[in-house]
Amino acid sequence: MSLTPPQLADIRCLAFDVFGTVVDWRSSVIREGESLGQARGLEVDWAAFADAWRAGYVPSMSRVRQGRLSWTSLDQLHRMTLDRILEDFGITGLSEADKANFNRVWHRLKPWPDAVGGMHRLRERFTLTTLSNGNMALLVNMAKQAGLPWDCVLSAELARHYKRDPEVYRMATRLLDLSPQQIMMVSAHQDDLNAAKDEGLRTVFVMRPLEFGPEARPDLTIDPSFDYVANDFHDLADQLLSRSEARQSLALS
Amino acid sequence: MSLTPPQLADIRCLAFDVFGTVVDWRSSVIREGESLGQARGLEVDWAAFADAWRAGYVPSMSRVRQGRLSWTSLDQLHRMTLDRILEDFGITGLSEADKANFNRVWHRLKPWPDAVGGMHRLRERFTLTTLSNGNMALLVNMAKQAGLPWDCVLSAELARHYKRDPEVYRMATRLLDLSPQQIMMVSAHQDDLNAAKDEGLRTVFVMRPLEFGPEARPDLTIDPSFDYVANDFHDLADQLLSRSEARQSLALS
Repeated sequence: MSLTPPQLADIRCLAFDVFGTVVDWRSSVIREGESLGQARGLEVDWAAFADAWRAGYVPSMSRVRQGRLSWTSLDQLHRMTLDRILEDFGITGLSEADKANFNRVWHRLKPWPDAVGGMHRLRERFTLTTLSNGNMALLVNMAKQAGLPWDCVLSAELARHYKRDPEVYRMATRLLDLSPQQIMMVSAHQDDLNAAKDEGLRTVFVMRPLEFGPEARPDLTIDPSFDYVANDFHDLADQLLSRSEARQSLALS
Repeated sequence: MSLTPPQLADIRCLAFDVFGTVVDWRSSVIREGESLGQARGLEVDWAAFADAWRAGYVPSMSRVRQGRLSWTSLDQLHRMTLDRILEDFGITGLSEADKANFNRVWHRLKPWPDAVGGMHRLRERFTLTTLSNGNMALLVNMAKQAGLPWDCVLSAELARHYKRDPEVYRMATRLLDLSPQQIMMVSAHQDDLNAAKDEGLRTVFVMRPLEFGPEARPDLTIDPSFDYVANDFHDLADQLLSRSEARQSLALS
């Protein structure tokens, strides 16, 4: 693990997975659910609701990936799942405006505490891009609200393929006009990193043990072939920047 | 001219033309040409060279727009024009590395003096995106070098159509999930604004009388149907932000 100095010097761009890696979707959805519940007098287990919403994520994208559903943006997939689980949870009486607004909670997710500061440090040396299944509008709105300092916003939408389809990673190298070894994928999801690695990208596994909540027991056994493993984005900056760069970047963050 | 208050309140995004509007391509190309000339002992009129390079821009894109050339990135079009005018100017003896590096001068163009400060002010209220014929890699690299604070980088490359084809403007509304009236095109080129207006976008004409050099006499007769006319990006911020926003934004810029 960890690249040799010439390999590291080659890295031009860090490409970030977003949901779970940069932002804490679960707490954000719970918090907005609770506000909505209070405003509309609903009694709901919002943690269970958030988990059910997220549980619809992979199956809904799989329908697109397998060609059973034509290209559908993540906003639309989120809405399809929302409509289904509102029914499952027996929630009635929400207006169309309530539902449309709640569906956009995914545009308002809050970053993990280290994310913005760590990104500012990493941005001194690398080009930072999203490489996310979120649609462009979602990612741009999220960045604006959360203050995420991207140099570039790239979405699966531009490839009309969802991760882990290889077309998504290839789209990034093509649009940034870089070779795969010049891009390092940063993700809390090992299958994402393995798919990136298959396309020749470098890899960083960021541990986000709380992504699925304090009760979850995620498998944090780490594939030894990842180039770096980091506890958070500051730890990643400490590992990737030279000592003098790291000192400077801390002063800036 | 100038939108009513409810129309202005609808605007969510400013979409900027880049070459000539945000950055001063001519001075930047002349400056790098002079450095290259000194390093390689070349006697060249670099202002004439810059003008010739830029003169190849519209005709080369026209070949793509008319289907006489399949999709070709602006980096590649710039290189095709460069190879031709090097010959026209009788310049020989440049290595492939020299030519590849000089071709990337378009990634290193310098902003007009008001651009970065004005953008920081406008960004407090609006989402700022490029809507440029430059390819994604060019625009991302330029932003990084020049410190241009984009929220989003959108290129004609994503539509595989060059402005003024309507597909480029439609791509922006689609990817940002906005209606055309929520986007205002900011450009120093009236044909760009007219094409944007045809797609329902709002329009700002920014006067850049020096784009083609101090000798040029550009036609600054202004189409009265543009929503705003601005002398530079600070003037635009003064017009678009309320008085209290304008004061705050000046303190930030």
